[in-house]
Amino acid sequence: MRQYEMYELTFKGAEPEGSFAEAAPDAVFRCNGEEKAVKGFYAGNGVYKVRFLPEQAGSYSWKVTGMVEQEGTAICESAAAAPDGGPAAAGMGRGVVRAEGMSFRYEDGAWFYPFGTTVYALIHQEDRLAAETMASLKSAPFNKVRFCVFPKHYDFNHNEPPYYAFEKREDGSWDVNRPCCAFWERLEEILVQLGKIGIQADLILFHPYDRWGFASMSQEDNLIYLDYLLRRLAAYPNVWWSLANEYDLCTAKSIRDWEEIEDFVAENDPYRHLLSNHNCFQNWDFTRPNVTHACIQSRALNRVSDWRRRYQKPVVVDECCYEGNIRHIWGSISGREMTNRFWRVVTMGGYCTHGETLLEKDASREEVLWWSKGGRLKGESPARIAFLRKIVEELPGPIEPVDSWIVKILRMSGEEKEQLSRQAEPFVKAMLRLGDEMAEFADGEFVCQGHCGEEAYLTFYDKRTCGEDVLELPEAHSYRVELIDTWGMNRTVLLEKASGRTELELPGREGMAVLAVKTE
Amino acid sequence: MRQYEMYELTFKGAEPEGSFAEAAPDAVFRCNGEEKAVKGFYAGNGVYKVRFLPEQAGSYSWKVTGMVEQEGTAICESAAAAPDGGPAAAGMGRGVVRAEGMSFRYEDGAWFYPFGTTVYALIHQEDRLAAETMASLKSAPFNKVRFCVFPKHYDFNHNEPPYYAFEKREDGSWDVNRPCCAFWERLEEILVQLGKIGIQADLILFHPYDRWGFASMSQEDNLIYLDYLLRRLAAYPNVWWSLANEYDLCTAKSIRDWEEIEDFVAENDPYRHLLSNHNCFQNWDFTRPNVTHACIQSRALNRVSDWRRRYQKPVVVDECCYEGNIRHIWGSISGREMTNRFWRVVTMGGYCTHGETLLEKDASREEVLWWSKGGRLKGESPARIAFLRKIVEELPGPIEPVDSWIVKILRMSGEEKEQLSRQAEPFVKAMLRLGDEMAEFADGEFVCQGHCGEEAYLTFYDKRTCGEDVLELPEAHSYRVELIDTWGMNRTVLLEKASGRTELELPGREGMAVLAVKTE
Repeated sequence: MRQYEMYELTFKGAEPEGSFAEAAPDAVFRCNGEEKAVKGFYAGNGVYKVRFLPEQAGSYSWKVTGMVEQEGTAICESAAAAPDGGPAAAGMGRGVVRAEGMSFRYEDGAWFYPFGTTVYALIHQEDRLAAETMASLKSAPFNKVRFCVFPKHYDFNHNEPPYYAFEKREDGSWDVNRPCCAFWERLEEILVQLGKIGIQADLILFHPYDRWGFASMSQEDNLIYLDYLLRRLAAYPNVWWSLANEYDLCTAKSIRDWEEIEDFVAENDPYRHLLSNHNCFQNWDFTRPNVTHACIQSRALNRVSDWRRRYQKPVVVDECCYEGNIRHIWGSISGREMTNRFWRVVTMGGYCTHGETLLEKDASREEVLWWSKGGRLKGESPARIAFLRKIVEELPGPIEPVDSWIVKILRMSGEEKEQLSRQAEPFVKAMLRLGDEMAEFADGEFVCQGHCGEEAYLTFYDKRTCGEDVLELPEAHSYRVELIDTWGMNRTVLLEKASGRTELELPGREGMAVLAVKTE
Repeated sequence: MRQYEMYELTFKGAEPEGSFAEAAPDAVFRCNGEEKAVKGFYAGNGVYKVRFLPEQAGSYSWKVTGMVEQEGTAICESAAAAPDGGPAAAGMGRGVVRAEGMSFRYEDGAWFYPFGTTVYALIHQEDRLAAETMASLKSAPFNKVRFCVFPKHYDFNHNEPPYYAFEKREDGSWDVNRPCCAFWERLEEILVQLGKIGIQADLILFHPYDRWGFASMSQEDNLIYLDYLLRRLAAYPNVWWSLANEYDLCTAKSIRDWEEIEDFVAENDPYRHLLSNHNCFQNWDFTRPNVTHACIQSRALNRVSDWRRRYQKPVVVDECCYEGNIRHIWGSISGREMTNRFWRVVTMGGYCTHGETLLEKDASREEVLWWSKGGRLKGESPARIAFLRKIVEELPGPIEPVDSWIVKILRMSGEEKEQLSRQAEPFVKAMLRLGDEMAEFADGEFVCQGHCGEEAYLTFYDKRTCGEDVLELPEAHSYRVELIDTWGMNRTVLLEKASGRTELELPGREGMAVLAVKTE
């Protein structure tokens, strides 16, 4: 047993008499006077398993009752004792990622800044292709992958998957009481492989793009499926629960159904993994207590700091269009634009997710688009996202947005505005006259500027081509100021000891960024 | 006398005893039983002038009374009788531009599509520089220039102008009763020069960037100034009245003052030239009856079709940032971005205005930025704007926006939505559930697509890099479909006889546009 790693107990027993899915041995793990109850599952062929994720090192005793009866002990090694430090560096053995404020942290305290990608039908491809995807991910800049439990039926996605989550009844309908072990083992194998390369699995539990019937199961069946899934998968440290891809397109489910699903997942996950729900049109209500972070599909990226304020949770823009060349509006932005969107979101204190829909016109090749099937990454953005990720991970902590003065005023109470108008200069006074149209005005005004306390300041100039700028740095400290070419991936030191009001000479090209880091 | 051209009568008389500005001979012009009353002005040195803009050809009689007493006749030639057709092609001799629906038309019926630029302090520079500006305009793609009556005090604008609109009193204050003739003659010379090269003068009557006191004159003085200006300038066919640049930053004027100014200008202009008011933050209320078109400063260009709907008047985005490299956020977009903004606005059925704030770092050169002083155009956008203008002017009429389905739904009444939800497919049904967040969603969703009835369809792909698309053309007609490279300024015929649902193969680069024009 090792801290922050899934621990599995295996038992032989009798085949369940009724539902295979609902056969759930009870288990209790005790360590240092604390006790944790978990449930096992039936793994087929007369085998029962109990999985447990030890969150602290020490001496454990365990007891299993119900379908199988057994007890034992185990010594749990501390994650810190990793011999070579390798796995920890790659994100392994750091425990579950949790929200803290508007950011994320591993259980061991290290910050986790999501740089996600999307491979919806990752687990529904043939072995050769799945292996190619995993190899691509190994050298890609992504530390989170969104993918679906259920197969996907959509443009460029018409293949049958190797396995389905359940067996079929004789009438052809899905029997959620008979999980298909080969399917679940394959999914788990992929979770393990992702974990080994430091990637979080943002697992999508339902989605609307379906020709098999998974999207229209009864709510009773939905909960049986989720109960089984949680007993099998919750002990993997690197899973997140994404209730849906585009919950609002799942017409078989009402909002009440989604709320029940949300409650069920939260209550039946002993480790309280990250949990959110992804929209097509309307954001899920991320203020709900079970929801750990905002998971948003949107192209209105100027809203990132509004969303932070509204939800007071980490904001992940999990879909902002994909680098691609297909006809859909969401699948045809350039690599440069994808890169810009990452920079915009990140400098406003959010996290962004990549996807790629590049279709090769060579008819001899299959239509394998990364966004759903995986395979090779062909786009221009991943190298730039890697470059950004390195910069972000070198910062002393998460980025908070620096709001423009107009956004600050927009957020003032009537009383604060009143007070300001008494002392303000004409420019601000004029702005204070604005009513509802202020929000409209602010729409065009967002700045992409973030900071880590007084430790670092990061500005993305985006489309701006200014040849000079002024940085307002604290007087009390000294900063190294670097010019960053976000597309060319170069960094140049502009000033070594900047402090206070700092004039910058800039090259006046699109895609510039400036980073100031405190040196003393 | 020539139709659509300013006709001037000059009289010697006694110097006015009181205000020079208010000395206003009355005049009446009669033609074909119609009568038009106008007022003259005192031009200095014992000279009175009466200016008249004949809007129809024919035999006129006129009578002047008041400061001078005289009458006479004149034959007004028809504009259509222009011997070489040259001036008409250049926009000369076509009469006043007026709003029609959400577009503009010359009085002779020809469409006028504004492609504006901005040279705020055009008339406040030395002769050499003003001449250079006029030479630049001659070969530039612009048919409208925004400039101020009063000089401008701002960054890069600290020179004293050659003349001011009024003489000073002994105490140093401006005496609006004593117009400075040299100033007004110079302004008129520029109006005439602009007219000769087919350029409309979007004359800015007030603005806040002032160190001389013009922005803080009493309202009484404001109206004396306007009265004089209208009697002098209203007979020039190519003037538009822009009440202000950034009215909402003019802290000396209340909204009530602006309304009075607006009424005054409208009532005292015998020709009812185009009239609007330009904002910094909050749009002027363009629904007011005197206002002929929306004149907007904004960067939220996705709102163009909303503004059309809200105001039901032509929408001119008269400030959307400038191609430049200065530190201000509004003065540092790339030429490429300026080009894109023109395409966005134009394909959504609006009109866009250029400006340039490129600062040459060569210290040996003066700081002459086009946006305020004129001089040479240095940017990359004018050539592309010329290319766009040619395309637009070849269209059979003004562009109406094609709204995306989401915008269409957004604008439905509750009843219409109810009706649609009964028959709609899941995708649309889900969207219909959206409340307030729908507008937020739509923000990221705008399409840049316009059409001229069934005659032509123009789509700007902007950041989209799709390798294919589908055009839904009417079945009944046949269209030539061209691919346009908006930056490279190339046009390639993709299809000669397209009709109905048309599949397009596209190069998948940023900045593509597609134009389909009916050929039979």
